[in-house]
Amino acid sequence: MFTANGDYSLLEGNYLFYEIGKRAREYQAANPDSDIIRMGIGDVTRPLVPAVIDAMHRAVDEMGSEKTFHGYGPDFGYDFLREAILRRDYTARGAGISVDEIFISDGAKCDVGNIQELFSRDCIVGIMDPVYPVYLDTNVMGGRSGRFSPKRNGYERIVYLPATESNGFVPDLPKERVDVLYLCYPNNPTGMTLSHSQLRVFVDWANETGALLLYDSAYESYITDENVPHSIFEIEGAQTCAIEFRSMSKTAGFTGTRCAYTVVPKALVRLDSFGNKVSLYDMWARRVSTKFNGVSYITQVGAAAAYNEGYEQIKDVVAYYMENARIIREGMESAGYTCFGGINAPYVWIKVPHGDSWRFFDELLKERNIIGTPGAGFGASGEGYFRMTAFASRENTLSAMKRMEK
Amino acid sequence: MFTANGDYSLLEGNYLFYEIGKRAREYQAANPDSDIIRMGIGDVTRPLVPAVIDAMHRAVDEMGSEKTFHGYGPDFGYDFLREAILRRDYTARGAGISVDEIFISDGAKCDVGNIQELFSRDCIVGIMDPVYPVYLDTNVMGGRSGRFSPKRNGYERIVYLPATESNGFVPDLPKERVDVLYLCYPNNPTGMTLSHSQLRVFVDWANETGALLLYDSAYESYITDENVPHSIFEIEGAQTCAIEFRSMSKTAGFTGTRCAYTVVPKALVRLDSFGNKVSLYDMWARRVSTKFNGVSYITQVGAAAAYNEGYEQIKDVVAYYMENARIIREGMESAGYTCFGGINAPYVWIKVPHGDSWRFFDELLKERNIIGTPGAGFGASGEGYFRMTAFASRENTLSAMKRMEK
Repeated sequence: MFTANGDYSLLEGNYLFYEIGKRAREYQAANPDSDIIRMGIGDVTRPLVPAVIDAMHRAVDEMGSEKTFHGYGPDFGYDFLREAILRRDYTARGAGISVDEIFISDGAKCDVGNIQELFSRDCIVGIMDPVYPVYLDTNVMGGRSGRFSPKRNGYERIVYLPATESNGFVPDLPKERVDVLYLCYPNNPTGMTLSHSQLRVFVDWANETGALLLYDSAYESYITDENVPHSIFEIEGAQTCAIEFRSMSKTAGFTGTRCAYTVVPKALVRLDSFGNKVSLYDMWARRVSTKFNGVSYITQVGAAAAYNEGYEQIKDVVAYYMENARIIREGMESAGYTCFGGINAPYVWIKVPHGDSWRFFDELLKERNIIGTPGAGFGASGEGYFRMTAFASRENTLSAMKRMEK
Repeated sequence: MFTANGDYSLLEGNYLFYEIGKRAREYQAANPDSDIIRMGIGDVTRPLVPAVIDAMHRAVDEMGSEKTFHGYGPDFGYDFLREAILRRDYTARGAGISVDEIFISDGAKCDVGNIQELFSRDCIVGIMDPVYPVYLDTNVMGGRSGRFSPKRNGYERIVYLPATESNGFVPDLPKERVDVLYLCYPNNPTGMTLSHSQLRVFVDWANETGALLLYDSAYESYITDENVPHSIFEIEGAQTCAIEFRSMSKTAGFTGTRCAYTVVPKALVRLDSFGNKVSLYDMWARRVSTKFNGVSYITQVGAAAAYNEGYEQIKDVVAYYMENARIIREGMESAGYTCFGGINAPYVWIKVPHGDSWRFFDELLKERNIIGTPGAGFGASGEGYFRMTAFASRENTLSAMKRMEK
């Protein structure tokens, strides 16, 4: 008789965006004339840039002709895209990654979620708190979390590393055993970053303890500060302890077009649960070639255009959003709030004066018709904060801040 | 200290297409003037049809304008595509599936590979032999196979169900415990099919034993015989025991464009390893929304065009390949071989007179400059057979059969 994987039943419902949507719909129904401005979900709103559009039209035409048609592509991505990424994102920054260590995928969420298949089930997982919920949920589904403890407000076997005002939103090194540590910088939701020296502390710790770092830098293109690393591979020693996730979603507006990539260094060699010496690169390559069939050719051509002839164009879009972030941060500060983030990330992390982030959500919705995201939705240490995103239109961003003035 | 998942080290190398490529390259290098015809890998060669191309151009334009831009799509796919699929593939065949039971994805290989996350680790997995290798490999990586036994020429905990000439390429019902059974019809590699009554035997068995059926019908659009079911949901009772996988890859030439779908009925309710009553629909929905971010909007618009204004055009392409299949089958029969498949599938399964499929591969390569696939690569019971695919051009297919005449 078939038996289902019980680990799924250990998941706590993640009702964050569902609950936000429900409250917004109820308010809108009761107040049909209200003009709600949405600064909650992290989805982009600017169109794809002209160079990407032109390239994708050409690629569509190629698919329509027998001579230029593309069937199955290489499992790990076309070299024309991998080489463009290598040049812009690694070689230019002195990060010595090779082109075959770059795996093209249809989304960082997928890769971030699938990477845990490479961990043994008894690995102890550490996550920042607050943070993007996929790291936690996929390890619950993979049997590494233990049960949820209401008393602890967390899972028994997960190590939570608070990132709050008291430590500058940079977690302290774990005091207990952690075998796998997820880091997300520029951080979602806090919008805060690590300096080179702060990141080096984690790399050195991982190499000393034999831990694996999962470095999610999906927002790296929003970094404006010279002292903030874009890639963990800018840090010496990272190639023996880190995997990095990147996305075109926020870099080039690809949330609905789907392209990302993951860097797995060949130097990542560890023991497996049988005591075999194994290459995580080989394991990931095997995972990808067994359970994935590559990214749409049309999408990859578009992504390459974003790195090549469209590079200045995508930089302009990022600058547009970062001007929104400045407007939000300054607007909220003028309105009397303490703000974090928004300088190297499209997220502004606002301190809630009374400390209750869901109450603040309701107040903003009802009094100003603005939707943001309650920090409690990102983890226990997110309570007391509120996230606003810079991805709305300029007009809506300005209107929202005007409403905050009152 | 990080420890890697040891289950990956239980994988036997799947060197089938690697080995084919290597032997072909070596022969080509030694014989630079030889004109090799490739009928090995199952990749399509005809371009996307005009209706799909037109639709994708329109979608690309939408992505370039602020007013019509699409960011994150619905996790389970756009309703415009799900509804088109429902109408053509289910409602028209009397299969009572609802639109929200259809999950759009970027590939059947991904879904077929990921579905095993829903099984407990102690489920006993049954697979047809020979068969597409992803069913087996993903269960090895998921810890359900036990070790490979050279003596048995198979994994200790996997139940292999031979599908050979002696049973008409339809496996007998398992005699031992099987909790999950993968069925692939029209079959890759044999090209053979099940009738309604043959499929009903499996559905009844699954409902009696509580097993789960994974039905891969990626090649259903190649069915020409009225008595062959396209979907397992044409069979009464399938909704309480089956999940179905479909693909646009062979139906509409999307191998490089990436779109597929999986049907998980809401009636699929089982116990999990903790004894909770769980819905496999809810579990799959949670899996998809946690580890996937939807398919490219442009791709989904193209896929919907294939189901709507392009439907006759994609049928013409399928007919083109099926004419190739006829040419191969008749050509090989004229040359004295016993053939199976090729009537309801783009694969012709040829009996190797001397029984050694790799020797036959070498003979065909060297004597006729034709590449096919040795049956042994699809499982122990594939030995003695050889697969030829109908996806080459008409010209190459005709040339290959001319070479067989000599």
